[in-house]
Amino acid sequence: MISKIKEEIERAKTIALISHKSPDGDSLGSVAGLGQALMEMGKEVTLFVNDKIPEKYEFLAEKNPYVLYKKGMGKNMDLLFVLDCGQASRLDYSEEILNEAKTVINMDHHMKNPNFGHINWVDTDISSTCELVLELINKLKLPLNYAGTTALYTGIVTDTGSFMYDNTAPKTLRAAAELLELGVDKDRIYREAFQSRNIKEVKLLGEVVKDLTPLFDGRVALSSLSQEKLKAYDLDIQAMDELIDFTRDIAGVEISVVLKEMENGGTKIGFRSKNAYRVDSLARSLGGGGHEKAAGATVKMNLAETEAMLIKALEELLQ
Amino acid sequence: MISKIKEEIERAKTIALISHKSPDGDSLGSVAGLGQALMEMGKEVTLFVNDKIPEKYEFLAEKNPYVLYKKGMGKNMDLLFVLDCGQASRLDYSEEILNEAKTVINMDHHMKNPNFGHINWVDTDISSTCELVLELINKLKLPLNYAGTTALYTGIVTDTGSFMYDNTAPKTLRAAAELLELGVDKDRIYREAFQSRNIKEVKLLGEVVKDLTPLFDGRVALSSLSQEKLKAYDLDIQAMDELIDFTRDIAGVEISVVLKEMENGGTKIGFRSKNAYRVDSLARSLGGGGHEKAAGATVKMNLAETEAMLIKALEELLQ
Repeated sequence: MISKIKEEIERAKTIALISHKSPDGDSLGSVAGLGQALMEMGKEVTLFVNDKIPEKYEFLAEKNPYVLYKKGMGKNMDLLFVLDCGQASRLDYSEEILNEAKTVINMDHHMKNPNFGHINWVDTDISSTCELVLELINKLKLPLNYAGTTALYTGIVTDTGSFMYDNTAPKTLRAAAELLELGVDKDRIYREAFQSRNIKEVKLLGEVVKDLTPLFDGRVALSSLSQEKLKAYDLDIQAMDELIDFTRDIAGVEISVVLKEMENGGTKIGFRSKNAYRVDSLARSLGGGGHEKAAGATVKMNLAETEAMLIKALEELLQ
Repeated sequence: MISKIKEEIERAKTIALISHKSPDGDSLGSVAGLGQALMEMGKEVTLFVNDKIPEKYEFLAEKNPYVLYKKGMGKNMDLLFVLDCGQASRLDYSEEILNEAKTVINMDHHMKNPNFGHINWVDTDISSTCELVLELINKLKLPLNYAGTTALYTGIVTDTGSFMYDNTAPKTLRAAAELLELGVDKDRIYREAFQSRNIKEVKLLGEVVKDLTPLFDGRVALSSLSQEKLKAYDLDIQAMDELIDFTRDIAGVEISVVLKEMENGGTKIGFRSKNAYRVDSLARSLGGGGHEKAAGATVKMNLAETEAMLIKALEELLQ
């Protein structure tokens, strides 16, 4: 497979890279990291995004010329890398690019990736697509510059929670060490991706946790964000990501749950668990999904109904 | 020096280890990590502490038999390791042990360690004393067990903020990789040391950040904790450590300052900086000290006076 990828890269003159919508550190980092290596080789490279870059990753755009994909833009591409994209549908409106490019290479670390590329390299044991890209770069001895190492480091640290999550393996730490040795703008990464809380979110988090009383002998932290509250702080449903991790990390709390009222009246539910309980089955039973320790669902109930339903469901789970 | 340490270990039958008062992950971890290796060698080992073990590090005491030092307990020791202790006076009342033991080996990573041991290995470029201990263990090929690897990993991750701080070097990540490969109870470490916020502190943090308005165009976050507020939440002056990092990590904030009113009416000041400004000179000018990005001082002024004084001083610093 590696030799096939090598052949495709050698043959290609124009190469595009793209990843999933709602970009994160690993999608933006892998596209830029591999893209920089290909640019250093002298290829004509386009780094596509299909969505707004979140504020905390805007620094990556300073050194990496991301282009917003529009229909047809993939037609002149000899080769397309789709990175960190567990399903073709996660490309959203840019899914058409799969038919535009001549050859599609799918590199990913998500479970159940259906191998939608012509060549597929899916490794579910690896921390991040950035770690996988670094493996490719090393195996093919591709050149790596400062923008590239910084992009790859960004993906590794954001997907591992700065090496705190279970997906951190010895080789993950060694990959990070290798990048750090080559030179990485580590201060900038941490400053932007980890040290840039939105002041409005900080204040709303304060309001919520000030009155938080964990349920079930302190084992469950449940917080609800109404539309009214979000609007009072000028925030939308995408905001307040930090709250669920913040409340999980309370002594004694095993599961944290955050409910967000949607504009249509439904409720978005997020679950986090420390170690003792799995939250994925509960999320799946509500039509959602996720991992053992991080899962979610969207239900057609209002906030109060969802709370009542979950308190029953959590009581069963805790038994 | 390594060969001298080797000789001393070989010659010694009874070996004690101790570190600074107000123990942290690196002091407890290095004492236990090296202690476990020496126990595995069949030495008679005593792991001394000279202070209460903080709740978040109590898990280390499950596998490591720490003993509270009392005067005279060092008299039967052929060899004493003093670890992670920048000055002899940081041993507090246990400083006497330096005269009790036959030979003292001082291993540390703090600046300006005055080499108070018979043998001194001070490396100020290394992340943590735990990383230094691992280097010793590797060089002397000492045996390392699960309790030992877990203790050393604890010190490395707590002293580097899970590899976020500047002191994280490629070799730090490789040392962590090596430990992880040997087996480390990583889940437990993160759960106890990083995911165990005190609910009272969470609530008071909420109350404080709910109304926070950064000063100087958002560049300074200043929070004050009165005795009245601390008492209302049943907390003492040691509490609320997290607040200063939490408020530094707001977008746009360059410096965070937390003032705590002391019972005697004075004020304890903590400073954190991202990158743009140094806070150590300001702390020193107030009779305190610290590092470029983390410093502090204690002043004989009340909260309001301290606030007014600091706002002037910060205005100058920001110019």
